[in-house]
Amino acid sequence: MAADGAWREFSIRTRQRSELVELTDQVNHLLADAGIRQGVCQLSVLHTTAALLVNEAEPGLIEDLLRTLDRLIPADPAYAHPDGNGHAHMKAALLGSSKTLSIRDGRLLLGTWQSLFLVEFDGPRERQLVLQLLSA
Amino acid sequence: MAADGAWREFSIRTRQRSELVELTDQVNHLLADAGIRQGVCQLSVLHTTAALLVNEAEPGLIEDLLRTLDRLIPADPAYAHPDGNGHAHMKAALLGSSKTLSIRDGRLLLGTWQSLFLVEFDGPRERQLVLQLLSA
Amino acid sequence: MAADGAWREFSIRTRQRSELVELTDQVNHLLADAGIRQGVCQLSVLHTTAALLVNEAEPGLIEDLLRTLDRLIPADPAYAHPDGNGHAHMKAALLGSSKTLSIRDGRLLLGTWQSLFLVEFDGPRERQLVLQLLSA
Repeated sequence: MAADGAWREFSIRTRQRSELVELTDQVNHLLADAGIRQGVCQLSVLHTTAALLVNEAEPGLIEDLLRTLDRLIPADPAYAHPDGNGHAHMKAALLGSSKTLSIRDGRLLLGTWQSLFLVEFDGPRERQLVLQLLSA
Repeated sequence: MAADGAWREFSIRTRQRSELVELTDQVNHLLADAGIRQGVCQLSVLHTTAALLVNEAEPGLIEDLLRTLDRLIPADPAYAHPDGNGHAHMKAALLGSSKTLSIRDGRLLLGTWQSLFLVEFDGPRERQLVLQLLSA
Repeated sequence: MAADGAWREFSIRTRQRSELVELTDQVNHLLADAGIRQGVCQLSVLHTTAALLVNEAEPGLIEDLLRTLDRLIPADPAYAHPDGNGHAHMKAALLGSSKTLSIRDGRLLLGTWQSLFLVEFDGPRERQLVLQLLSA
C-alpha cells in the first residue's frame, strides 16, 4: 500500500467470477490511519469490469443483485465486444467505477444498513483501488 | 435540522410506496442559509431502499421512470432477500444513494431542465439525508 | 470556453441520435491549461437526455452498450412523457449527469482501459458541460 499524502492505494483479490467484496471496514481503517476526521473520500477502482456500490450486506440480497444483473445483461455470445466479457463491462458501467463519500467523525458517512462494496463482474482478479482523502 | 459547521441534516416524509420527491429548492435554501457561494455539495441518503437522481420534473416522465424500473426489477416473491423489499434495494443500488454536485453563484449547478430528487422505493417512510457543504 | 477561476465551460456537438463521445483528452488538456496537479474534477452535463460514463473505448463495446440500453429501455410510444424522448431521459437518469474524478499528477486518475465519455441519447445536439476544478 502506498501512502503518499492524500493518496492510499490498495488491491483486492477477488475469488469468484461475480461477487461483492465489502470494503467499509478497510476504508474506515485507512481513514483512521490517516487521522482524517472530516472531509471527503474519493474512491476509484481502476478497471472496466468492476464497480463500486453502496447497499446492505445481506447475503440473499447480494445473490439477488448479481442474478438480476445477469438477467438484465446476460453473458451473450452475440456481443460485438471481442473479449467475451462485454456483459461485465456493461454491468460495471451501469454501477460506476468511482464513489464519493462524506467522512464524518473519522468514518465514512453511511446509514445503519449501508455498506460499501467492490463489485467484481469478471473475476477472479487482482483489483487496484485508489482512495483520495480530502480534509474539510 | 442540525447545523454543525459544514453539515446539514434533514428528513423527508415520503407518502407513497414509490415516488420522486423534488429536493432542489430545499437544498438551494440550505445553501443560501449557509452563505456558501461556490464549492461542492455532497448529499447522502442514509438508507438502502431510497436513492438520489437528477432529471426533469415532468409528471409523465416520473411515472414512466417508476414503471420502467418496476418492469426491469419487479417485486418478485422469489428473491432470496428475506424482507420482501429486495426489488427496492436493487433499484436504489442502481441509482445510488449519494450525489456530488457543484455549487455556483450560491446555487446547485443544474441545467434548465434538471431537478434533484429523492427517490423512494419502499415507502411511505421518514428518510434521513445529510448535506455536506464544501467551500472552494 | 469560459475560464473563470475554478470553472471551465465547454460544449460538445453530437452527430448521432445515440453515441458516446470520448472526453478524456479534452478534460486532461483543460487540467493542463489550468495548471492543476492534484485535486478533484467535478464534471456536469447540464441536460436531462445525456450522461457521463467511464468505461473502455472499444467500438464493439460501445455498440453493445447502446443496443443493450435500447433493449432494456426501448423507445416506446406508450410512455407518458409527452416529448417522445422518455427513453432518452430514463437512460440518462440511470447513468447520471455528473461525475467526480480524482486529479493526480495533472491528469484524471483513470486505469489503463478507462476512458471518460459523454453519452448522447437524444442527438444530434449541442451539449453544454461544466468542469469544476478543486485543488487539494
